[in-house]
Amino acid sequence: MAVNLPPLPELYPVPGIRLGTSRAQIRKKDRRDLVVIECAPGTQAAAVFTQNRFCAAPITVAREHLGQTAPRALLINTGFANAGTGAEGIDDTHRCCAALATIMGCTPQAVLPFSTGVIGERLPVERLVTGLPGCLSAMSDSGWAEAAHGIMTTDTLPKGSSRRVLIDGKTVTLTGIAKGAGMICPNMATLLAFIATNVAMPSAVLQQCLGAAANESFNRISVDGDTSTNDSCVLLATGTSGLEIRAAEGSAYKVFYEAVRDVLADLAQAIVRDAEGATKFITINVVQGASQADCLEVAYTIAHSPLVKTAFFASDPNWGRILAAIGRARIPQLQVDRVSIYLDDVCIVRNGGRAPEYSEAQGQAVMARSEICVRVDLGGGTASARLWTCDLSHDYVTINAEYRT
Amino acid sequence: MAVNLPPLPELYPVPGIRLGTSRAQIRKKDRRDLVVIECAPGTQAAAVFTQNRFCAAPITVAREHLGQTAPRALLINTGFANAGTGAEGIDDTHRCCAALATIMGCTPQAVLPFSTGVIGERLPVERLVTGLPGCLSAMSDSGWAEAAHGIMTTDTLPKGSSRRVLIDGKTVTLTGIAKGAGMICPNMATLLAFIATNVAMPSAVLQQCLGAAANESFNRISVDGDTSTNDSCVLLATGTSGLEIRAAEGSAYKVFYEAVRDVLADLAQAIVRDAEGATKFITINVVQGASQADCLEVAYTIAHSPLVKTAFFASDPNWGRILAAIGRARIPQLQVDRVSIYLDDVCIVRNGGRAPEYSEAQGQAVMARSEICVRVDLGGGTASARLWTCDLSHDYVTINAEYRT
Repeated sequence: MAVNLPPLPELYPVPGIRLGTSRAQIRKKDRRDLVVIECAPGTQAAAVFTQNRFCAAPITVAREHLGQTAPRALLINTGFANAGTGAEGIDDTHRCCAALATIMGCTPQAVLPFSTGVIGERLPVERLVTGLPGCLSAMSDSGWAEAAHGIMTTDTLPKGSSRRVLIDGKTVTLTGIAKGAGMICPNMATLLAFIATNVAMPSAVLQQCLGAAANESFNRISVDGDTSTNDSCVLLATGTSGLEIRAAEGSAYKVFYEAVRDVLADLAQAIVRDAEGATKFITINVVQGASQADCLEVAYTIAHSPLVKTAFFASDPNWGRILAAIGRARIPQLQVDRVSIYLDDVCIVRNGGRAPEYSEAQGQAVMARSEICVRVDLGGGTASARLWTCDLSHDYVTINAEYRT
Repeated sequence: MAVNLPPLPELYPVPGIRLGTSRAQIRKKDRRDLVVIECAPGTQAAAVFTQNRFCAAPITVAREHLGQTAPRALLINTGFANAGTGAEGIDDTHRCCAALATIMGCTPQAVLPFSTGVIGERLPVERLVTGLPGCLSAMSDSGWAEAAHGIMTTDTLPKGSSRRVLIDGKTVTLTGIAKGAGMICPNMATLLAFIATNVAMPSAVLQQCLGAAANESFNRISVDGDTSTNDSCVLLATGTSGLEIRAAEGSAYKVFYEAVRDVLADLAQAIVRDAEGATKFITINVVQGASQADCLEVAYTIAHSPLVKTAFFASDPNWGRILAAIGRARIPQLQVDRVSIYLDDVCIVRNGGRAPEYSEAQGQAVMARSEICVRVDLGGGTASARLWTCDLSHDYVTINAEYRT
C-alpha cells in the first residue's frame, strides 16, 4: 500500500488541453490502457527523456517529432513498453502515430508517442489503433483524473498535482499526472509524467524550465536504482491564459518556475510513496559535502543499498548499514572522522562513531515512523543534495517476481 | 538453502599452522564464535582488506601489525564487527591482541585481529578474552573444519577448499576457509578468508600473488552490492615444505599462483552459493568490450539490479530487465545495435533487439536451472570480465530484516 499518498486532488482543467481514455485490451482485459491528450494549436512542448541507452522506440520517435513541429496530441499506452524491439518497434510506433493523425487531421509529426510496460515484446498495433476512437469520443478538458488512471501499471493509486497561481494579474493553471512504481532511478528525466499549463512560452524557455525543475524533483527519487528505458516527462504550454513569459528570468518566470517545480515534486514524491512494495517514505539529505556530485553519490549509495532498505522495512535502526554505505560511496575524499548521521532529529553518529548520547530506543522510535529523514553531514564543504526513496519489502520481491504472470 | 554447495571437502593440514576454536558467548549463546590460527615462527603473511572507508577497528590494527612483524597468530571473532566504534573500538581490539599475546608469549604486534558481525556496537572484550584459553587448548593442525564453522555468521554452511600440488618435487599444500553471506561486494578484498600454504615466499611476492588471485576471485563476486567494513583475506606461508619461491615469475610460481587462485575461486563461489536467500547461482560474462573496466561496469550493473535479481528468483526470462541494466551502465560508449545477450546457450538478443529465432520456451528452460550463465557480447572490443552473483529472494529480505533480532 502506498505510504501516506492522499487521494487524487482536484485536477484543474488547463484551457487548451483535452484528455480521453479508453480500454483497448492492449495487454490486460478491461483496464484503461490508452490515453490521448489533445493540445490546442500553437501549444509549445518541452520534454526530458531517459538516459538509458536502450531507450524505447516511442522515445526515439517522440524526440524526432518534437524537433519538427508543435504537438497536437500525446498518445500514451500501457501494457507494453515497445523497448528492445528494434526497427520493427519504430515502425509500430510510426503506425500508431499515423493512425491518430489521420483521425485528428494533423500530421503524424504532431503526435508524440509514449509507452510503458513489459520490455521486449511487440506493441499490438491493431488493438491500440482500434482503441483510438474511444479516446477521442471521451475527450474532455476535465479528463485528467481518468488519464491519471489510464497511465498506471503496477501503481496502486493514480498520481496528480494541480496549482493555480496568479502571475501579473493572470490566472495560470498547472496540472500534471504521472505514473511510476518500479524501475525507478531517473537520470535527467523519468517515468511517464505529463504536465500542462496555459502560459505562453517559447519552447526553448519551456525546456529550460522543465530541465531545471526535473533536476529538483524526478531526478531526485529512486526506488530500486533501475533506470527505465521509457522515462519521459512532457510539459505543454497552451498559451491560453493571456500571460506570456518570454525568457527564463524575472519575477513572473520565477513564480511560474516554482509552481512547475512544486507540481513535479508532488508527482515525484507520489511515485515514491506508491513505489512497489513501499512501506516507508525516506528522505535522504546529504549536507556539507565538497560538491553536489559528492552529496548525490552518497545519497544514492544509501538509497540503493539493499541492506539499508531492508533495515527500514524492518524498522530496525541498524545505522551501521548506513555508515557502511557511506564508506563505499565513490567520492574522491571522505573524512570519516567528520561524518555525522541523523535519523530525523536523533544524532546517531558523530565524528564517524556512535554518538555517546544515542540510545537504541531513540533510534527505534524514529524507525517506527512511516516517514523518516536520514541526514548525513559530511563535515567537509558547503554543497548539499536531497532525494526521496523507500524501503525494500517482501512485496517488492513478490511484485517483481510475478510481474509478467 | 545454499545453491549446489557441496559439503566441506577434506581440508589438508598445512604444516606450521594450528587452529583452535571456542564458544565465547560473544553475541549468541553456545555457538563457535572465536577462532585462533597459530602460525609457526617465520611464517610470512600477505593480506588484502576492504576498500570501505569506514573500515573496522580490527582492519586498522591488522594493517599496523602486518607492517611491523611476522604474525604468530590470527584472532577472529564473530558476533560483532567492531566497526563504527571509533577510538574505543581500536582500544578494544588492542586489548584482545594483548591478551592473546600474553598467553602465547609473543608481542601484541604478532597477533592479527579480525571481526565480523553487527556494526556499531562495542566488542565484549571480557567475554572474548575469557574464551581464548578454550581456543588454545583445542589447538590442532586438523582444526580447519571447526574453524570454518567458527567464522560463520548468517552462512548456512561452512566454506573451505584445499589443494595439494607437486612443485619441483615438493608437495605444496594450500588450505583455505571463508565466510560470507551478505554485505558482499568486495573491492580489492573481501569478507573473511584465511588461506595457508607451506611454501616459503618473501612477503612482497606473497602479497603480489594474493592481490592478483583475489582480483580473479573475491573481487569478482557480488551478493547485494554492499561492501563490508570488515572484508579481509589473509594468505599465510609457513615455509615448511622445503620449497622456496623467491619471485613472482617462473614455472614454480605459475603453478603455485594457479593453485592459490583456484582455492580462492572455490571459496568465492562458495560464498555466492551460500549467499543470503540465494536460490540461483549466476555467472555473468561480459565479452568484446572496449576495456575490462567497461565489461566490469556492465557486469556489476546487471548483478546489482534488483529487477534482474527478482526475475532470476522467479525463473522468469524477463530479458528486458537485463537489456535495461546494460543501457544504464556507466560506460562511455555503448553501441546498442551491436549488443547480444545469451542465457546459457540461448541467444535472446542480437544486434540490440530480440533474436528472431528466440522463443519464450527456450528462455524458460534456461531460467528453470539453478545455475545460469548470462553472456553479454558488447560487440566493440577485445576485453572481457566475468563475475558471480545470485538472485534476490524473499529470504534475503527476511534474513536482513530480522538480522539483529
